[in-house]
Amino acid sequence: MDDKIPENADQVVDQASERDEDDFQPRRELLARIHFAIEAEDGATLNALLDPMHAADIADIIENMDSADRRVFLRLYAGEIDGEILSEIDEGIREEVLEQLPREVLAEAVREMDSDDVVDLIEDLDESDRAEILAALDDSDRAAVQQSLAYPEYSAGRLMQSEVVTAPEHWTVGETIDFLRNEEWLPEQFYHIILVDPRRHPIGYVTLGRLLASRRDAPLRDLSEDSFRTISAYAEEGDVAYAFNQYHLISAPVVDGDDRLVGVITIDDAMSVLDEEHEEDILRLAGVGEDSAITDTVVETLRQRLPWLMVNLATAIAASLVIAVFETTIQQVVALAVLMPIVASMGGNAGTQTLTVAVRALATKSLTGSNVWRVVRREAIVGLLNGLAFALVMGVVAYIWFDGVSLAAVIGIAMVVNLGIAALAGILIPLGLEKVGADPALASGTFVTTVTDVVGFFAFLGLASAVLL
Amino acid sequence: MDDKIPENADQVVDQASERDEDDFQPRRELLARIHFAIEAEDGATLNALLDPMHAADIADIIENMDSADRRVFLRLYAGEIDGEILSEIDEGIREEVLEQLPREVLAEAVREMDSDDVVDLIEDLDESDRAEILAALDDSDRAAVQQSLAYPEYSAGRLMQSEVVTAPEHWTVGETIDFLRNEEWLPEQFYHIILVDPRRHPIGYVTLGRLLASRRDAPLRDLSEDSFRTISAYAEEGDVAYAFNQYHLISAPVVDGDDRLVGVITIDDAMSVLDEEHEEDILRLAGVGEDSAITDTVVETLRQRLPWLMVNLATAIAASLVIAVFETTIQQVVALAVLMPIVASMGGNAGTQTLTVAVRALATKSLTGSNVWRVVRREAIVGLLNGLAFALVMGVVAYIWFDGVSLAAVIGIAMVVNLGIAALAGILIPLGLEKVGADPALASGTFVTTVTDVVGFFAFLGLASAVLL
Repeated sequence: MDDKIPENADQVVDQASERDEDDFQPRRELLARIHFAIEAEDGATLNALLDPMHAADIADIIENMDSADRRVFLRLYAGEIDGEILSEIDEGIREEVLEQLPREVLAEAVREMDSDDVVDLIEDLDESDRAEILAALDDSDRAAVQQSLAYPEYSAGRLMQSEVVTAPEHWTVGETIDFLRNEEWLPEQFYHIILVDPRRHPIGYVTLGRLLASRRDAPLRDLSEDSFRTISAYAEEGDVAYAFNQYHLISAPVVDGDDRLVGVITIDDAMSVLDEEHEEDILRLAGVGEDSAITDTVVETLRQRLPWLMVNLATAIAASLVIAVFETTIQQVVALAVLMPIVASMGGNAGTQTLTVAVRALATKSLTGSNVWRVVRREAIVGLLNGLAFALVMGVVAYIWFDGVSLAAVIGIAMVVNLGIAALAGILIPLGLEKVGADPALASGTFVTTVTDVVGFFAFLGLASAVLL
Repeated sequence: MDDKIPENADQVVDQASERDEDDFQPRRELLARIHFAIEAEDGATLNALLDPMHAADIADIIENMDSADRRVFLRLYAGEIDGEILSEIDEGIREEVLEQLPREVLAEAVREMDSDDVVDLIEDLDESDRAEILAALDDSDRAAVQQSLAYPEYSAGRLMQSEVVTAPEHWTVGETIDFLRNEEWLPEQFYHIILVDPRRHPIGYVTLGRLLASRRDAPLRDLSEDSFRTISAYAEEGDVAYAFNQYHLISAPVVDGDDRLVGVITIDDAMSVLDEEHEEDILRLAGVGEDSAITDTVVETLRQRLPWLMVNLATAIAASLVIAVFETTIQQVVALAVLMPIVASMGGNAGTQTLTVAVRALATKSLTGSNVWRVVRREAIVGLLNGLAFALVMGVVAYIWFDGVSLAAVIGIAMVVNLGIAALAGILIPLGLEKVGADPALASGTFVTTVTDVVGFFAFLGLASAVLL
């Protein structure tokens, strides 16, 4: 089997058989050899090692080097860097790579790229770098890229490629095949023939499979798919990805404000967006800057993480102010200081569980008007039952530990209150943020843990000072 | 534009223009009308409302009903439930729906489905339900489904469809097109013609676009794509999704242990897997059962969340034991009880930031042997710098609040120690779990916060009792 599979497919095949530390072994050996070739400034060996590899894997290797190695690497390997590799390179180090590439290599590489990849490459560059790359393109490609850049960031217009295969609606299968055979230029990958009317409004599409399986005299119009739908160039890329996933689209025509065909989005682009959006959601939930990457420097990392830690500090101080109110109580019953973090921690965790489920359900549009109250009710019941369960457990633990029935009762009641509130905060805060147009993934966590800390400390210490003193 | 777009595509188009609370308005109205039709047991209206909708949207609506509505709905609408709707229905309520469908509807629906969708539908059913559905299939479909079920759960073999379009390697374009035109049965969607040798070993593939653009006498062999790679039927589905995403595959042939073609996986299946894996990662990071869904009942929800809260309770008690050691210290300087949660909370948050980035990097295979020490070093430096920054801030806050220089010094030092440890725990614990074959997303959070709680309390209270008493 190995002789048929390109070298870099090894992880799919290897990891299937057994998932252990040897997984990366072949990879690691290869990486070591690449590293040695760079150290020795041995371009020939480098070429030989990378030649069988997929552009995406070469890009990964470039990303994982340190900057010093990368500099040498780019010098040795520049001639081989093509559009495919370039479009795979992570945003984090893209500017660094572009700067170090000889101008003619860069110009050659961008000329090979599809318009959507060029847009992706240059949209974050500064004006002069952008102009330089645009200048390297053919007139028609440049026009396509500029048209795309005219749409808002993160819109379907930025995501689409302008290379589209269309046919007039009145053509037959035979005419279409003859046209395709004679056409000099066709996109690398395409999955549909888009039917357009004379004013370039898309009115249907035919899958290539359907085209191939039909008789030459069949009219295209009769082969058009039910699944046909157009996407506005102004649609948000996240919504585009959702539509592809929800409706199992493979490609979809993009139209401008006048409903004219301006490009096409293919599923691999939608898949990348889905991947990025998920990534961002996870990072946001953890209070990490959404652009953070493993290639970031210390300064970039600090810039992403400090603000959220600062917010957390503020909320932690707020919770401490609650504790400060009960200083005398704690001084008299020091067991309270020992037990109070347990109440807060349980609330924080229960709240995080609920909010994560809620944030995901909102992101996947499965929490809607029709089921929201049912879900809120479920969370409230679950919160109370969790609270009762852990009230019992902690009551027993506190009784055994500190030999006090009242203390056990106090922590039990505080646990019920805090886990109940945690559940409500966990569902209502994301819903509220969504309602006011904020991103629930970004801010919910801080709000929810603030609520559970404050309520946890207040319920526990407040009850204690009422009951125990 | 609206007249051309199916009703259910509204979210892509609407949400693009403005993201506000009106987004779901058209949807909500429709849902209300569906609800009324169910209440009134008005099957005709229900049919009329759902007729223009995509199967995926109908499935969503079924998922979002409460069980009572769903029961009535299924009675009224059973005749319209087809294979497409059935394959879109979420696992969480699938069994409930299957049970309520008339047997002949179910049999008819599964006969329409692709083999991979049937496998997905029945793999979690019990033996007798499974047998019933298998019995409804044609012999050849049943054989395909059983072959698929023979592969391990979550393997490529389960994910593939057995419907494959192949051609002998020696065929020309013309022969292939003639074959396709005469073939009675072709899959709904296919993107490649897979070239096989006489023993059914796949040796290349030709995209349909390439086929359409080539002359009739061109040999298929000359049109085969470089990107060709096979996937082992035993490969894990997560690795398959990774390969599709990494190498921009559209479809890939699946081979058995003898390298013979047994099926094909298409990108939409890979996209669903990617989506599910992300979902699971997010839920695992939050300590929520990975199978949790918004349709779960109270009991299912409790079953998923209680175990993790139990683990959290154990670690919270462990942290409290550390506090208990310093009871006398706290009694003498009660300000310590007020400030100690701040140290622990900052450590927990900083640790969670680091671990989330690490877990994601491991999941996307971007944290590898070649950059691991660089990343660990970066995290350690970031942790120390964060620690110094917040030591300064909290030192000043503590000094102003409690008017004590020593107390300010103690909390500052504790902050540096805890944020430094948090960073190391945040990166080393996921790496360690990955090394021993555990899922870093599942367990890292608990370990990391335990470390930061224990270290935070110990550093702060230990230093305090040494310095302040």
